[in-house]
Amino acid sequence: MYFASDNWAGAADEIAESLRQHSGGFSPAYGESDLDKRLEERFNELFEREVAVFFVGTGTAANSLALSATNRPGGFVLCHREAHLIEDECGAPEFFTSGARLAPIDGAHGKLDLQRLREGLERFDPNFVHHGQPMAVSLTQATEVGTVYSCEELQAIADLTHSFGLPLHMDGARFANAMVRLGVTPAEMTWKSGIDILSFGGTKNGCWCAEALVFMNPERAKQLPFIRKRAAQLFSKTRFIAAQFHAYLDDDLWISLAKHANSMADELGERLNQFSNLRVAWKCQSNELFVTMPKQLAKRLLDQGAKFYPWPVPAEFAPKLAAGDGLYRLVTSFATEREQIDQLVAAIEASSKPTS
Amino acid sequence: MYFASDNWAGAADEIAESLRQHSGGFSPAYGESDLDKRLEERFNELFEREVAVFFVGTGTAANSLALSATNRPGGFVLCHREAHLIEDECGAPEFFTSGARLAPIDGAHGKLDLQRLREGLERFDPNFVHHGQPMAVSLTQATEVGTVYSCEELQAIADLTHSFGLPLHMDGARFANAMVRLGVTPAEMTWKSGIDILSFGGTKNGCWCAEALVFMNPERAKQLPFIRKRAAQLFSKTRFIAAQFHAYLDDDLWISLAKHANSMADELGERLNQFSNLRVAWKCQSNELFVTMPKQLAKRLLDQGAKFYPWPVPAEFAPKLAAGDGLYRLVTSFATEREQIDQLVAAIEASSKPTS
Amino acid sequence: MYFASDNWAGAADEIAESLRQHSGGFSPAYGESDLDKRLEERFNELFEREVAVFFVGTGTAANSLALSATNRPGGFVLCHREAHLIEDECGAPEFFTSGARLAPIDGAHGKLDLQRLREGLERFDPNFVHHGQPMAVSLTQATEVGTVYSCEELQAIADLTHSFGLPLHMDGARFANAMVRLGVTPAEMTWKSGIDILSFGGTKNGCWCAEALVFMNPERAKQLPFIRKRAAQLFSKTRFIAAQFHAYLDDDLWISLAKHANSMADELGERLNQFSNLRVAWKCQSNELFVTMPKQLAKRLLDQGAKFYPWPVPAEFAPKLAAGDGLYRLVTSFATEREQIDQLVAAIEASSKPTS
Amino acid sequence: MYFASDNWAGAADEIAESLRQHSGGFSPAYGESDLDKRLEERFNELFEREVAVFFVGTGTAANSLALSATNRPGGFVLCHREAHLIEDECGAPEFFTSGARLAPIDGAHGKLDLQRLREGLERFDPNFVHHGQPMAVSLTQATEVGTVYSCEELQAIADLTHSFGLPLHMDGARFANAMVRLGVTPAEMTWKSGIDILSFGGTKNGCWCAEALVFMNPERAKQLPFIRKRAAQLFSKTRFIAAQFHAYLDDDLWISLAKHANSMADELGERLNQFSNLRVAWKCQSNELFVTMPKQLAKRLLDQGAKFYPWPVPAEFAPKLAAGDGLYRLVTSFATEREQIDQLVAAIEASSKPTS
Repeated sequence: MYFASDNWAGAADEIAESLRQHSGGFSPAYGESDLDKRLEERFNELFEREVAVFFVGTGTAANSLALSATNRPGGFVLCHREAHLIEDECGAPEFFTSGARLAPIDGAHGKLDLQRLREGLERFDPNFVHHGQPMAVSLTQATEVGTVYSCEELQAIADLTHSFGLPLHMDGARFANAMVRLGVTPAEMTWKSGIDILSFGGTKNGCWCAEALVFMNPERAKQLPFIRKRAAQLFSKTRFIAAQFHAYLDDDLWISLAKHANSMADELGERLNQFSNLRVAWKCQSNELFVTMPKQLAKRLLDQGAKFYPWPVPAEFAPKLAAGDGLYRLVTSFATEREQIDQLVAAIEASSKPTS
Repeated sequence: MYFASDNWAGAADEIAESLRQHSGGFSPAYGESDLDKRLEERFNELFEREVAVFFVGTGTAANSLALSATNRPGGFVLCHREAHLIEDECGAPEFFTSGARLAPIDGAHGKLDLQRLREGLERFDPNFVHHGQPMAVSLTQATEVGTVYSCEELQAIADLTHSFGLPLHMDGARFANAMVRLGVTPAEMTWKSGIDILSFGGTKNGCWCAEALVFMNPERAKQLPFIRKRAAQLFSKTRFIAAQFHAYLDDDLWISLAKHANSMADELGERLNQFSNLRVAWKCQSNELFVTMPKQLAKRLLDQGAKFYPWPVPAEFAPKLAAGDGLYRLVTSFATEREQIDQLVAAIEASSKPTS
Repeated sequence: MYFASDNWAGAADEIAESLRQHSGGFSPAYGESDLDKRLEERFNELFEREVAVFFVGTGTAANSLALSATNRPGGFVLCHREAHLIEDECGAPEFFTSGARLAPIDGAHGKLDLQRLREGLERFDPNFVHHGQPMAVSLTQATEVGTVYSCEELQAIADLTHSFGLPLHMDGARFANAMVRLGVTPAEMTWKSGIDILSFGGTKNGCWCAEALVFMNPERAKQLPFIRKRAAQLFSKTRFIAAQFHAYLDDDLWISLAKHANSMADELGERLNQFSNLRVAWKCQSNELFVTMPKQLAKRLLDQGAKFYPWPVPAEFAPKLAAGDGLYRLVTSFATEREQIDQLVAAIEASSKPTS
Repeated sequence: MYFASDNWAGAADEIAESLRQHSGGFSPAYGESDLDKRLEERFNELFEREVAVFFVGTGTAANSLALSATNRPGGFVLCHREAHLIEDECGAPEFFTSGARLAPIDGAHGKLDLQRLREGLERFDPNFVHHGQPMAVSLTQATEVGTVYSCEELQAIADLTHSFGLPLHMDGARFANAMVRLGVTPAEMTWKSGIDILSFGGTKNGCWCAEALVFMNPERAKQLPFIRKRAAQLFSKTRFIAAQFHAYLDDDLWISLAKHANSMADELGERLNQFSNLRVAWKCQSNELFVTMPKQLAKRLLDQGAKFYPWPVPAEFAPKLAAGDGLYRLVTSFATEREQIDQLVAAIEASSKPTS
């Protein structure tokens, strides 16, 4: 009953096998091997244009270096109030940018509200030095609460961002989960919708640790080799990331893995919704499902070994929460098996019965 | 003929296999899994005391975070002029410490000269704010030029360092190579010789990417969990580092790998010394061999596909260099096979023959 | 009609004269002169205890170095949403702390709401590394909107802050204006109410550039000499700051200057309130007066050379604002003369008359 | 007998008087007053071209912000081994650049050796990311040891620097002293000799605290307003710096002050050279005189209240130092009076007599 996070899984079989296969022999370090070079080519094909791609070890690194590339003195980045950048990276984006601020923007369901974003951008006269200056907008796809921006929504945010002369960054820790839900291509969900810089996550979807920082316009990435090395993110045996990503992209493995994770979330949602005391809080569009249930029930499930986390109740959702209920996040992954859903459902049934 | 660097090899078989074995199942992320916890215990056993250990992805990260833990405003770190910290980390130590300076100290054969270190420490009145303040001493074992400090030499540097109230850091990217050469234990080469903080490298000796930052006194590491996370070095699926290190330590694999690399370097040195126009520049004490040879010969070998690098001639060595000769570094590793030495020797023989 | 800001004035006569008097002769630089030493003694007397005091050139420097002294990796500072720290220092606090975050807390009338502050402090488990860790609370006295915390209010915030093991910082850019309004001593408004670190401002109240960073517990300031020098805030001819502060404190000049500024604000408020179309928005407790008036009227006054700024309407005040009205800030200072108030009143009368 | 440093003096009378005169009235803060604007015009005239000028409070700030404007990730600045940047700013340049390295270059008499500088620049392949990348060259005029670069020497360094695509910065803390010695114009000693960025010091030559950062090409300074504000170096009452600089430049006051300081140094040198046991160590070209004398004598003079400092003996000078002698720095300033020289000479005479 592992629904704590998609990073509780290990690596997909194909990826583990690829690593084993590439472990022998000798080849240049620091990204200069043939395997590395071929991988860069594959990213060009994947995005249907020449991109600049940099491989790093963690999603926090990808996000932090993305913002470093947009840095300005006194700069701030507008992002959603609940963004991973703000809530879960221990100040890494601020640290790597030597003090850029993350300016929180409101919006329902984890998405930037366009009007609020406009107010945030218009708030400060760019020539009034005291306030600092905006340097980028960042959004998360899929969002932290399992929702997904449509390409039209992305384009609207991009148009607004670009009208202020700023680049738009996408934190794609769950890029694949969002993409397969929308049924679009990588190009369509990024530069064709106005995204300039992408954190392309592989770790949550079946890799050990494989993240790519992708600049749709390579001109913008001129200093990235130095920024990455200075950030201690240039691995020596880069083949180990390349080996993961080759397997990830081969035969559309990444698509299959993401579809599986999403379908498990859908199924879990349907099964849970059949209980009268559980409810899917809002439509799940990726692999993160949010449900309400009595706190007593949640406690019993956790006591029985189920793994999932409570979640802070968003202000706009609070009125919908029944007394005694809590909000919980359940995450599926490429490795989730139906049997685990069956176990959870059985545990709920058992817990819900009167203890006669 | 791969003698470019020990990071041109991939991963040792046992380590690749361990990764594959641990790729399935579910377990807590961010260092909370049983595998992670057991590994922490193994480091306590390895060092014969309770240590604080933090796993990171690169040697540059280990070094940079080690120094971050000793940081003071206006601080500087005394280290050898040719230290990896200064020469090969693209300013990462300065960046992660928000501007600490690396103060270069001279010394023959890549080792800190005790008298020069004393002068460096005595140079500045600690109460004269303009000069800044010393914050740590860092040395490299084995050094960048293949030599090794004896435990007595380490202790002398430690005594001096501690007399100024400073901690002593060891960059142990080639810790195993030095240790098996000295024939001592991890404890003997570290805290029993006065080392306070250690960058314990696994990558160059057969891992994919596995580095450990070890604090001999856990009190000193209180803020490290935050420092590491803020540095984007807390991996989510930490099992992949733990799986590498468990295999690395099992059955003394790391000892065997390091002994093999060293013996290959020894053999290479003996074979090359038999040529009249090649000479081992100074005694190799780890797996890095430095030789002089005619530049013309080096060029021919490289043209034939041999992989090794020229090396800047240290001032003290310059008088010993014959006209027309260059200095070259040849590195062996856990993966070096005798056949490669044979090939190189054959290529030298062929190149040395008169082209009649 | 100069009501733009209290930093539009130059220096009080006594302070200008003191500077002229101390301009000759020779004495040690960098804070070692007798004049400097005597000034440190005066701060001990002023605060009725031994304090550590550091003189710097700007309020932004005082605030930034205060927070630097409390710095932790992944740290954040809780302060009011409209704090000068956040709104008007171009990211200096974040920069000097190498990336600490300023976490905005709500509260009416520019004051931290105690319950909101508690929620902000309780929000994150201090052992959950992803969220970072709180490092300080900062409040502003007088606030950015002219209100003043009572000593009881300060103590309540201090108690809460200390219960989380954190220090409490006061941005006292308008310290004197608040203090004379409350009728208390420097000690009462600081450490006797739980304040640990104070930015003691002299510039807005009659100095050229004279700010003091005061640590109530000198132990906390051990690294400050290095932090200040590294921040380029250690002046060589420190006598010029000392000369200002000596005159500032002599014969309670600073008290007189602040009382004058406050009384001018009071008088301005009373005079403006007599017009039917102007209204004092909320009670002025220092030297910053906020009034509502028709935007048309404001425009006419500005066209006639009156100097004051519009102000963003706080959410809680918006319902009280009449259609067509705007909110404006008028600031008096030690140098404000009644004649200027007369001129403004006359201009309003003239502007309000029907243009027959 | 005040020869400790030129910052032991206060302010020149004309500057103190100017401050007093401008202390009244109201005018815009943060550099927007007429006085500020006129001062910017005067700098254009002074340098015979349109420059971008930024006023700051300390020389350390001017230098640190100059380098911030040239910053690159993994960047290093080549400067003289004994530069103020390295020796006397407590890591401020490194801090403000978030970790740029100061790479020390050798050279006799405090001047960059052209060949050593070339080696420093050629040492690293700019495309080899591990080494970082050069970002600027910085020199000091007059140097830390009282010597002065000729315009031809400046041009040679500039040509070399520019051939690597880098900007050349001049630390002009004693700009006036050097300029009057060379008998050239500000334009000739800067952009006409290839200088790109200048720290123009006023403090050591008669101001209280008035330093200007001058960019010969304003395009290079686009981000400086934000960099300065973020560095807490934007004063609110900027009139106090402007008032100093206006008086400084009026009627060539600055020229007169520097000529006086230099001539006092010359006279002091001549007088001291007449003693058999004192010797001017090398030709003084500004207002810093270096002399050798018996350590015993120096001690007696200091005991009698003379103020001057011992100085570390440069390696190239050591062979010339007589046994028992030390090297000492004596600094004159705009405020040095002949009477002080007379006193020192008398004290030497008295000390040199046999105590019969």
